[in-house]
Amino acid sequence: MPTGTQTDAHVPPMHVLARRAREAAGILAVCPAGQRTAALRHVAAGLRDGTETLLAANRRDLEQASLSPFFQERLILTAERLEGVARSVDALAGMEDPVGQVLAAWQQPNGLKLRRVATPLGVLGMIHEGRPTVGVDAATLAIRSGNALLLRGGPESFHSTQALHHVIQQGLARAGLPEDAVLMVPDAGPEHVGDMLRAAGLIDVTVVRGGRALVERVQAEARMPVLAHAAGLCHSYVHAAADHELARRVVRNARLRRPGICGATETLLIDAAIAPGLLPQLVADLAAEGCTFRADEAARSILPELPAATEEDFATEWLDKVLNISVVEGVDAALAHIVRFSSRHTEAILTEDEAVAQYFMQRVPSAIVMWNTSTQFSDGGEFGLGGEIGIMSGRLPPRGPVGPAQLMTWRYEVHGTGQLRP
Amino acid sequence: MPTGTQTDAHVPPMHVLARRAREAAGILAVCPAGQRTAALRHVAAGLRDGTETLLAANRRDLEQASLSPFFQERLILTAERLEGVARSVDALAGMEDPVGQVLAAWQQPNGLKLRRVATPLGVLGMIHEGRPTVGVDAATLAIRSGNALLLRGGPESFHSTQALHHVIQQGLARAGLPEDAVLMVPDAGPEHVGDMLRAAGLIDVTVVRGGRALVERVQAEARMPVLAHAAGLCHSYVHAAADHELARRVVRNARLRRPGICGATETLLIDAAIAPGLLPQLVADLAAEGCTFRADEAARSILPELPAATEEDFATEWLDKVLNISVVEGVDAALAHIVRFSSRHTEAILTEDEAVAQYFMQRVPSAIVMWNTSTQFSDGGEFGLGGEIGIMSGRLPPRGPVGPAQLMTWRYEVHGTGQLRP
Repeated sequence: MPTGTQTDAHVPPMHVLARRAREAAGILAVCPAGQRTAALRHVAAGLRDGTETLLAANRRDLEQASLSPFFQERLILTAERLEGVARSVDALAGMEDPVGQVLAAWQQPNGLKLRRVATPLGVLGMIHEGRPTVGVDAATLAIRSGNALLLRGGPESFHSTQALHHVIQQGLARAGLPEDAVLMVPDAGPEHVGDMLRAAGLIDVTVVRGGRALVERVQAEARMPVLAHAAGLCHSYVHAAADHELARRVVRNARLRRPGICGATETLLIDAAIAPGLLPQLVADLAAEGCTFRADEAARSILPELPAATEEDFATEWLDKVLNISVVEGVDAALAHIVRFSSRHTEAILTEDEAVAQYFMQRVPSAIVMWNTSTQFSDGGEFGLGGEIGIMSGRLPPRGPVGPAQLMTWRYEVHGTGQLRP
Repeated sequence: MPTGTQTDAHVPPMHVLARRAREAAGILAVCPAGQRTAALRHVAAGLRDGTETLLAANRRDLEQASLSPFFQERLILTAERLEGVARSVDALAGMEDPVGQVLAAWQQPNGLKLRRVATPLGVLGMIHEGRPTVGVDAATLAIRSGNALLLRGGPESFHSTQALHHVIQQGLARAGLPEDAVLMVPDAGPEHVGDMLRAAGLIDVTVVRGGRALVERVQAEARMPVLAHAAGLCHSYVHAAADHELARRVVRNARLRRPGICGATETLLIDAAIAPGLLPQLVADLAAEGCTFRADEAARSILPELPAATEEDFATEWLDKVLNISVVEGVDAALAHIVRFSSRHTEAILTEDEAVAQYFMQRVPSAIVMWNTSTQFSDGGEFGLGGEIGIMSGRLPPRGPVGPAQLMTWRYEVHGTGQLRP
């Protein structure tokens, strides 16, 4: 493991940090929307102006011992990546501000006027691993949505996160907003995760993004609600009435475009009625790009050369050029497979039969269900939400990609003229 | 404590019950809305037809040893109370069905059509104490919203809950829906609460309604999200620009209409500028109806005969004819008091100054904020939500009164025509 631990005596305790964040949250939640927008513009400019400094900090992280090539690739910042982040921040700055939006308004027969109004969640605690730019996404989404953020990045990206954090605080300050609105947990040691999770009453919601071990730890220990961005074990189901050419293009994109993202399809389900004709084509398309397969018995009766899939395979998120294949007897069998193995992230059906598509979409247990398109579209930016702090597969809202408008709660405002309850 | 424990060997274990509920939930979530409506109509009719049987079961509970008069009053069913419940169920049957409602719909530049669709939460676990009719409210709200319910009432109402449960299951069966959609945890022993709280993956959301000890236990032990209906330490703030006559009427209603409900005002905050003239009137109005007071020093400098309030008093939900009084120096001082002592349920401001009202409503940390009306209006029925399973004071939605349209989550449906992600 990378070290990165910077233990020292001057780190303020978690409750001090969280109180500072809470005070800043109170200001961010009620300042004019234009001030939050200005902070975002300053952050975007700061990312561009500070590119050299940011790359130098990133080199310090990369020089740490014992980083695997996989970690290196996730960790590395380039001028292009930073420009991409700056553009996302600019896009957020151009978005409609969600704070105070009236979600519903109505009047009761007694004349009481009621409104459900979007209001920031308060203080978000963000715990993540891997890419340091995840922290910038989280911070700028928090600013757009009027929330404060306590950020705890992975120890392996400590210096990068610190340098990015500096840019964000400068952006806040230049817009006249408190720097404490985005605070970095300055010690990257693992004991601080526990401190954050116990800070119920100070941190309103914890957002966790990382590997299964981290997510499960957070869900078990947290004393406040958790928004968990975890595995994406996604399925694409090719129904008997699918357009074959569309299915070939979409399945290839869903598995191979970027095999390592959470919205990538891990398992292909295909109806027995069309499998003999279509499955060999699908497999050939993907094999030509280096994909390998794990197939159930029914699929191997068509393509005996495919390796046999185990139960464990169907429960595995490969995040790689590997595809599980199961031949199913219709939509109910496809749904049964999904209910059993899906991580409740994203599933797709490919069919020209609208009634079957509706039936499937109504019954899928997952946060996102697609019809005739690629599961790789599961992304807050692609959905037009203005980015995402993660894709949540829990049951309660916010579910699916969580952008600024989803990082909100609501309050009820009731306006009377002296009504008394009888 | 009342006993009511009916331990016996044939009680199915929690995971068996929860699996049966989950299967029923799958049917309830996709059946035509009219079938859920029919079930509700049958439940309402069953409550009316079965009045004698229900009252007899209730008498068995009342005959249990060691019930305090307070418990007796909460526990007792009458023909009138049952008719009131039946009318609520009829109202629910007449409501718009929330299942499948399109919460938002838009199209992306690449032609993808997106919809956010309301979908039931799945299996609700409800743990409550006190009034047996709370279980009927929960069950019928669950039916309206397409959710299944596992119901665990207080041991003191065991026979009443059992008889009411029978009426609900008959209503489901008559509408052709599975009786398992509403299951009662048949053993009222406390160990079953723990079993429910560990049933993550089987129960999607736990709803708890009861005293502080029960709510805190559930929040600490539950392995799934919890919707907690807990204390209502509500404030009414009489601002310097209040209409005095309106303030007198509203404060009296807010404290005394029904002193024991969670939306009752426990603490009066009043601006120093108007306290010398108005406070004596307010106190006289309430004292005439048997109310007593706990007053801070500033209030006692106006009315020295009032008993002094301690910190503890301001943190106490009296649920009785007792009112805390604090004289404050303007809206920020009122907000500071509320932030410190409020249980985040409901607060009210009484003022003719719209700018101050807006300022107050934007900054109150609570789920519900009222302007020129009584905090006693905090109620899902009064809000027009079709009843409530509770009033939630947590930060994440659903917040405030939770009616059928709030007992929902959402899924994203994405409809493409073969789009590939670039």
